[in-house]
Amino acid sequence: MVEEITVFLAMSSPYSDLIRQLQRLHTLCSVTGILGWDEQVNLPPDSADLRAEQMALMAELSHEASVNPAIGEALQALESGDVKLSSDERVVVREARRDFDRRVRLPGEFVTEQTRHSSAGYHAWTRAKPANDFAGYAPFLTKHVELAKREAEYQGWGDRAYDFAIDKHDPGFTAATIEVVFGELREGLVPLVKRIATSPVKADRARLRGFPVEAQAKFLREVTDRIGFNYQRGRIDVSPHPFCEGSGADVRMTTCYDIDDPMNSLFGAIHETGHGMYEQGLPLAHHATPLGQHAGMAMHESQSRMWENQVGRSRGFWRYFEPRYREEFGSQLAHVSSEDLYLAVNAVQPTLIRVASDEVHYNLHIILRFELEQKLFSGELTVEELPRAWNDLCEAILGRRPTTDTEGMLQDVHWSGGAFGYFPSYCLGNMISAQLWQTLTEQVAGVEDDFARGKFGRLLEWLQTNVHSQGRRYSALELVQRVTGAPLSPRPLLAYLEKRYGNLYGV
Amino acid sequence: MVEEITVFLAMSSPYSDLIRQLQRLHTLCSVTGILGWDEQVNLPPDSADLRAEQMALMAELSHEASVNPAIGEALQALESGDVKLSSDERVVVREARRDFDRRVRLPGEFVTEQTRHSSAGYHAWTRAKPANDFAGYAPFLTKHVELAKREAEYQGWGDRAYDFAIDKHDPGFTAATIEVVFGELREGLVPLVKRIATSPVKADRARLRGFPVEAQAKFLREVTDRIGFNYQRGRIDVSPHPFCEGSGADVRMTTCYDIDDPMNSLFGAIHETGHGMYEQGLPLAHHATPLGQHAGMAMHESQSRMWENQVGRSRGFWRYFEPRYREEFGSQLAHVSSEDLYLAVNAVQPTLIRVASDEVHYNLHIILRFELEQKLFSGELTVEELPRAWNDLCEAILGRRPTTDTEGMLQDVHWSGGAFGYFPSYCLGNMISAQLWQTLTEQVAGVEDDFARGKFGRLLEWLQTNVHSQGRRYSALELVQRVTGAPLSPRPLLAYLEKRYGNLYGV
Repeated sequence: MVEEITVFLAMSSPYSDLIRQLQRLHTLCSVTGILGWDEQVNLPPDSADLRAEQMALMAELSHEASVNPAIGEALQALESGDVKLSSDERVVVREARRDFDRRVRLPGEFVTEQTRHSSAGYHAWTRAKPANDFAGYAPFLTKHVELAKREAEYQGWGDRAYDFAIDKHDPGFTAATIEVVFGELREGLVPLVKRIATSPVKADRARLRGFPVEAQAKFLREVTDRIGFNYQRGRIDVSPHPFCEGSGADVRMTTCYDIDDPMNSLFGAIHETGHGMYEQGLPLAHHATPLGQHAGMAMHESQSRMWENQVGRSRGFWRYFEPRYREEFGSQLAHVSSEDLYLAVNAVQPTLIRVASDEVHYNLHIILRFELEQKLFSGELTVEELPRAWNDLCEAILGRRPTTDTEGMLQDVHWSGGAFGYFPSYCLGNMISAQLWQTLTEQVAGVEDDFARGKFGRLLEWLQTNVHSQGRRYSALELVQRVTGAPLSPRPLLAYLEKRYGNLYGV
Repeated sequence: MVEEITVFLAMSSPYSDLIRQLQRLHTLCSVTGILGWDEQVNLPPDSADLRAEQMALMAELSHEASVNPAIGEALQALESGDVKLSSDERVVVREARRDFDRRVRLPGEFVTEQTRHSSAGYHAWTRAKPANDFAGYAPFLTKHVELAKREAEYQGWGDRAYDFAIDKHDPGFTAATIEVVFGELREGLVPLVKRIATSPVKADRARLRGFPVEAQAKFLREVTDRIGFNYQRGRIDVSPHPFCEGSGADVRMTTCYDIDDPMNSLFGAIHETGHGMYEQGLPLAHHATPLGQHAGMAMHESQSRMWENQVGRSRGFWRYFEPRYREEFGSQLAHVSSEDLYLAVNAVQPTLIRVASDEVHYNLHIILRFELEQKLFSGELTVEELPRAWNDLCEAILGRRPTTDTEGMLQDVHWSGGAFGYFPSYCLGNMISAQLWQTLTEQVAGVEDDFARGKFGRLLEWLQTNVHSQGRRYSALELVQRVTGAPLSPRPLLAYLEKRYGNLYGV
């Protein structure tokens, strides 16, 4: 009898109560994830209404689960000091508290308003972008800024609304810390870009044409499998916009093929594989708790960018894969030399469009957006003044001026859904990846030689040990400091770009 | 002010309350449906644990929604006579009451026990079947019979447990009514089968070998599209066991390919298309209510069987599709004459295995199972006596005796999950399809000639008008009577089989 009671108590300890609630929330979110993936990959054209109903109901259920008072009660009991917690458990309590508080601070009506405006803004943008109709889109953007400021107020960050927008995606970062590293990065990038532009060496990706989709898919599957994506717990499919969805137990990534642009699908897939391997490397035993969750978007992006750039664009990688590539695409590559192929992989060409940009210019596109977001939130800039400010800054940073808003401030989807403070993650991810890479190559001798032999396991293991296995134990900034022994800095990224592109373009 | 109040009252009338609850339930079930489909079609091999968690949570939420007291309150208000209801609304209230009462009568613990035992029984069967291990499986089956009897008791059908099992799938049918029609059917089938066995005409499906999967898929897509499946609101994929899932807004069917058995995937797909077109023909505006739901498994099966057999195995169908088939599979069919191809499509050969059976023998397999189920429930037969009784009856009805239980009473999955009273639906569906077909050909002159011209619209329209659009307004028995002007009878099926196979085999 006594034993039975003990078991019962053990089964309903505050900690197990918390875990049960987090698990329920995680399961609901994972169902929504599958529905979202299916919507992009499988949904029949006229089945969108039912899917919208399904998504709305799952969002409602997830929200209910996320603000369930049982979570608050369990957290209070665990924070009282009456319960002895392991260090793992303390991390879970700390992070669960952070998530819970942020959710309960928002009134339900505000969440509904935000969700509705996010959808309305997105649809306004899909109309405005092709029509170059800034005026039709501006009111939505104005309201998004206003909503973001109100959200920050609810959260007690009223005087630092943009910092809050950043912190939502990347806990610990602020506009001020980013300003410093981005400033230094810009100073180093602008001259590098100019030097490359003067180089007589020219990459020509346009020569890679007529690559059948089936063969591309076969090769891409081989590459992603070999670098370490676990297809026992994931898959790759086709969708209009590539993405990666899911947690470690079931990771689904997508790509899209263009018969005349094989590098786009290949590097897109390697990028998503980086995201996917991060998710697969998070501790599965903790998959429903913060210990099994990623450390923010910048860290996530650092993983995808490392596999895409440091690995996928390296000499070693192509030494191994080029023969296989030529096996599959012999006729298409008949008149393309090894060096020309490698140059095509590492083409550096300025463009007005962020998503079409190479890894050198890419960071400048982000710096542009970061500066404008800051000014939008500080009030230094109104939405109406944005197009002109965008074009001026673009000319100053990238040396080219958009002639329409379609190729200017209307090009990205992010703001249309109210996602401010998200852009910096991309560039921070590039920095983190270069800084981790620097430490890795110091600690693991010959890792690049591995690639030339088709071996990627030592790199993946290092990332799993140092990054993936940590979950949300540390913020991205803390983790960089712990792993590399130094605070986040743009210098490793500049050194990496200087070395790779300086050599390749002989400048 | 007054107007606002009116609007508010209209928005929360008992009828709209009921619809809102039914919609919520339907949406939850449709999410579970997508997860189930995805599990069969897409799930990575090691992602089953997460999927099980997701399915369990969705089952819990669906159950909660289905017994929500708000449904009972709305129904009570609507049944009080105070609210004036249209005839459509009366159907919804009547059927929603039936569903709701059946759900609330079952104690939660019983549902859990049943669900758990259904899963345990299924796993026991997957072990027992290949091992020919009846003894290991028998206790699970015994418990399933006991659970089915307890369920009937909870429902107030304690003295008619098998009738209840039938009524669950096919409202209005009883063992006694089925006994009569099956008896007459058996009397007509046994001599027909014997005559065909003596015919010198022999079908040879084994000659159809080496049909590449891609070409099979292309042809099958063409066929299912042309006969009328709406791919704007549905899709076809590959899974180990073909099935059809979803409601009219998003219907997903599957098939599986065997390079050396092209007829299997083709007719499997036409069968699922029949199911799918029924779902797509149900009134979309009522998709969450009984007016937008099918009239039981027998009626569902009648639709799949009609497209598979009356249409897909007809001369007209092959007159149209044979040239296209030969375009796709010229070399494989080089030495197969038109008549041999048509015979292969209509091969009649006895087998011990239900799912491998032709449309003549198939009904005998069902009659066998129906007789045994009756005896199991009446106590005339114990589970232990089942293998011998199966083999005896199989010899008496089909003229062959299984040498193992693997090809005897262990062959089907249904009982392993506790699905009793389900088998009769298959044979009732065949009868209904033949009876509807008879009326259709009387009412719509030249419908078979349409097929030879690749036109299937008049048939589909007739089915939509007479069957699909009715939802659950009438039971299957009532609907047959209304549409054909006669009670359900085995004679149209016997006449149809006699005509097609008597002619073809010259007996």
